[in-house]
Amino acid sequence: MNFKALGKILGKIMIIEGILMVAPLLVSFIYNESLWHKLSFVFPILALVLIGFLLQIPKPKRSSLYQKEGFALVAMVWIIMTLFGALPFVINGDIPDYIDACFEMMSGFTTTGASIIEDITLISHSSLFWRSFSHWIGGMGILVFVLIFIPESNDGSSMHLLRAESPGPQVGKISSKMKVTARILYLIYLGLTILEIIFLLFGKPIEGYENDHFFHCLLTAFGSAGTGGFGFVPGSMEMYSPYTQYVISIFLLLFGSNFALYYLILLGKFKELFKSEELKCYLSIVVVSVTTIFISLVTRLEEFGYSIESAFRHTLFQVSSIITTTGFTTTDYDLWPVTAHTILLILMFIGAMAGSTAGGFKISRVVIAIKGLYVSIRKLINPRYVSKVKVEGKSLDEKTISDVFAFAALYIFSIFAVLLILSFDPVNGSTLTVFSDLAGHGHLIKHGMMSNISAVLSCISNIGPGFEAVGPYSNFAGFSPISTLALTFTMLLGRLEILPVLILFNPRTWKKS
Amino acid sequence: MNFKALGKILGKIMIIEGILMVAPLLVSFIYNESLWHKLSFVFPILALVLIGFLLQIPKPKRSSLYQKEGFALVAMVWIIMTLFGALPFVINGDIPDYIDACFEMMSGFTTTGASIIEDITLISHSSLFWRSFSHWIGGMGILVFVLIFIPESNDGSSMHLLRAESPGPQVGKISSKMKVTARILYLIYLGLTILEIIFLLFGKPIEGYENDHFFHCLLTAFGSAGTGGFGFVPGSMEMYSPYTQYVISIFLLLFGSNFALYYLILLGKFKELFKSEELKCYLSIVVVSVTTIFISLVTRLEEFGYSIESAFRHTLFQVSSIITTTGFTTTDYDLWPVTAHTILLILMFIGAMAGSTAGGFKISRVVIAIKGLYVSIRKLINPRYVSKVKVEGKSLDEKTISDVFAFAALYIFSIFAVLLILSFDPVNGSTLTVFSDLAGHGHLIKHGMMSNISAVLSCISNIGPGFEAVGPYSNFAGFSPISTLALTFTMLLGRLEILPVLILFNPRTWKKS
Repeated sequence: MNFKALGKILGKIMIIEGILMVAPLLVSFIYNESLWHKLSFVFPILALVLIGFLLQIPKPKRSSLYQKEGFALVAMVWIIMTLFGALPFVINGDIPDYIDACFEMMSGFTTTGASIIEDITLISHSSLFWRSFSHWIGGMGILVFVLIFIPESNDGSSMHLLRAESPGPQVGKISSKMKVTARILYLIYLGLTILEIIFLLFGKPIEGYENDHFFHCLLTAFGSAGTGGFGFVPGSMEMYSPYTQYVISIFLLLFGSNFALYYLILLGKFKELFKSEELKCYLSIVVVSVTTIFISLVTRLEEFGYSIESAFRHTLFQVSSIITTTGFTTTDYDLWPVTAHTILLILMFIGAMAGSTAGGFKISRVVIAIKGLYVSIRKLINPRYVSKVKVEGKSLDEKTISDVFAFAALYIFSIFAVLLILSFDPVNGSTLTVFSDLAGHGHLIKHGMMSNISAVLSCISNIGPGFEAVGPYSNFAGFSPISTLALTFTMLLGRLEILPVLILFNPRTWKKS
Repeated sequence: MNFKALGKILGKIMIIEGILMVAPLLVSFIYNESLWHKLSFVFPILALVLIGFLLQIPKPKRSSLYQKEGFALVAMVWIIMTLFGALPFVINGDIPDYIDACFEMMSGFTTTGASIIEDITLISHSSLFWRSFSHWIGGMGILVFVLIFIPESNDGSSMHLLRAESPGPQVGKISSKMKVTARILYLIYLGLTILEIIFLLFGKPIEGYENDHFFHCLLTAFGSAGTGGFGFVPGSMEMYSPYTQYVISIFLLLFGSNFALYYLILLGKFKELFKSEELKCYLSIVVVSVTTIFISLVTRLEEFGYSIESAFRHTLFQVSSIITTTGFTTTDYDLWPVTAHTILLILMFIGAMAGSTAGGFKISRVVIAIKGLYVSIRKLINPRYVSKVKVEGKSLDEKTISDVFAFAALYIFSIFAVLLILSFDPVNGSTLTVFSDLAGHGHLIKHGMMSNISAVLSCISNIGPGFEAVGPYSNFAGFSPISTLALTFTMLLGRLEILPVLILFNPRTWKKS
């Protein structure tokens, strides 16, 4: 283990986190919050910058990183960012419990958007900003950001880092230089975010929050760009006008697309764009899901109090929000028919495109898995069969297929393990009232196995809300500290796609080799 | 496709099914049932034997079978056996609807034990016998049975058949001759079944059914030997004395063990027996599950009306019944705490040992998957790592690992696909009353996604009961014909481990090659 080199990068990231925290501090000044609120950001900033500089002092003998070091570092970075990022919430009292605050922060950075906050109206502007801003930071990956600033080495270190952090099975190589790739990706990300803010500004402000319009547009854009999904007013996105809800739906789908495709657009290579199998699958899944759920709702419009337009809008919004693993909501889909639930559950598993800010299993993996199974079956029918199956124009080799299958197995094992931990929570079997609209119509929900299953799935796929006790109009506050920690860990597992976390906690990683 | 050779084997199997059906016909005579009940078996027997003989007439040019033909044949055999086996229920009026009757028969042969019968007391003795007898026939595999009688060829045909039908990733080769292997396996199966019948006969008869004691012992033994689980009195095994419940628990665990291990016992190789990793895992999982569920129940004895002894007994029984994918019940575990539910859900996935009569994913596959993942992670930490990992003393090659992962992926895809079909069922959202004890205490259950998930899981793992609307004190009668067909198909998928069924329905299988 090259501790000095690891410390150097870690230190740089801590300094960056400190700098990023100046943004919520400014918000605190703008909204004239109490001194204590301002200090709640000042203290962590000072600590981060100080420790960050101290970590720069030792000179490493070797500047390059091995693959295992890259993986371990990425997992470590995310944990440390969360531990420091959670401090303001505890200091300013918005989330007094540190474990809860870490859950909230991890949920922010991993772009999950699951919240333990029971009454969002009691949270200060600066805290709301920091929560949503963390989605934006985490969406693209903090290490991608760092790569823009650290010097590029030729030994593959930065490749290891990017590989460990980037979602999806392949890192789309836009440029041979990682640094250039990272810059282009961040510029696209920034550009799309600014575009969304502009579109949102044209919309109506939320009733009763007219003064916060710009602030809310920022938070909404952060939440959708990172496909995070933290709400900031009661009822998530329910209070927004139809125009704004449509804008968010479209931008969610855009942020769920592989960013390499935008680069193709920038280069004017539209032909290549339409060759992308994953894009075709993504759009097909969205169209089929929207159509099916819309039909299941349209026959029961009165029951839900929808018009045809609003049924379509809520369907489009919810499909976009769930497939991109964002978790924004405009309506209580927990009340929808089982057809809709089942489709949303499957979308939760699949997630959006690789190379986007979305979580989940990723459509490219599903495509590889299906084609891989096709090859296996063909080989059984005809043992002399030689596979000519291609994915995105490249022939599909055994290694790629087996990696995807291994990931699927790891995914399932992780879900079962966390499910088992949650099953011991005393909250199980208890009943809670969920108010599924702002008029205060409540319905009773029993916290059972379905709640736990959807909580685990929601966390590992970085979605946010699930069904039943963790449904869209409920929150994660009911869980015990142990379950909260387990779910915090699950969000990290999901965001880093399991392996880096396992490598960090594997004793062999730390042995001298 | 060698249709003539396929027809020959198929014909032989149809004749055997006809002969096996003489047993329920005899039961019909013993219990002096109506003429129509007797005829309900006579007609199908005549049809099976006639068609069976006709299929023997064409002389095939080549007697050997290719692998794909073996797979397709196995799937075809199970479907045809079900289609004919379901006829008596329709003719004698016990299950008037043919789709329902096919569900029940497929549930019998695949040893699932899920039932669409709403009032079991209305069913005739001969039908009850045929249902449970089908568990015994299907448990060991009908083709294994055929192999005893057909001449052994040296071209691997019988190997293809055995491979397609036997559960579990490896066919434990007891003898180099398949025929000898099949004989030994069936003798062990028969011996254990007779042993169980003897133990059961020492138990008390079910109250109110004193005259049916021997009959019930037979059905119980059939159901446990095949790890099927059809009940034949209201409340499954609830009415049996504690002695009988313990006997069943133990025999269930015995039938969930790899039969090759019994051969080792017969040969006196006890040392090798204790070397079996899968056996160790199996026993460990049982002990840990029983302990954990028992603790979760023992703190709430009063709530469930259990004594310490009965809490232990129900726990042992339910764990044995679920891990062996049998589905017998002694109590309404749907009322148990979420810890118990979660463990049972995980056991439903895992199933028992390969080479047993049980269904599910199989412990040996779980062991291979975990070791395979361990190898992947080691390789990431140290790319020069050369795996020395062994399973059951043999080094674990890439092919075995990737086969297991592929199976896991296929398993998950199948579950989602059927879940989607069930989601369109109008039964979703409806409420039903379940009487969870014989005193008639009912509780309301809403048919929701959890009911569907557990129905699919229960069918694909060949268990029988699930949770909520398909819980132990409910049945599968609520589903629409389309869902019933889908679940019938799912049971077949589960029993034949998916691939043979896919190959049968793949158009390429039928092309000339």
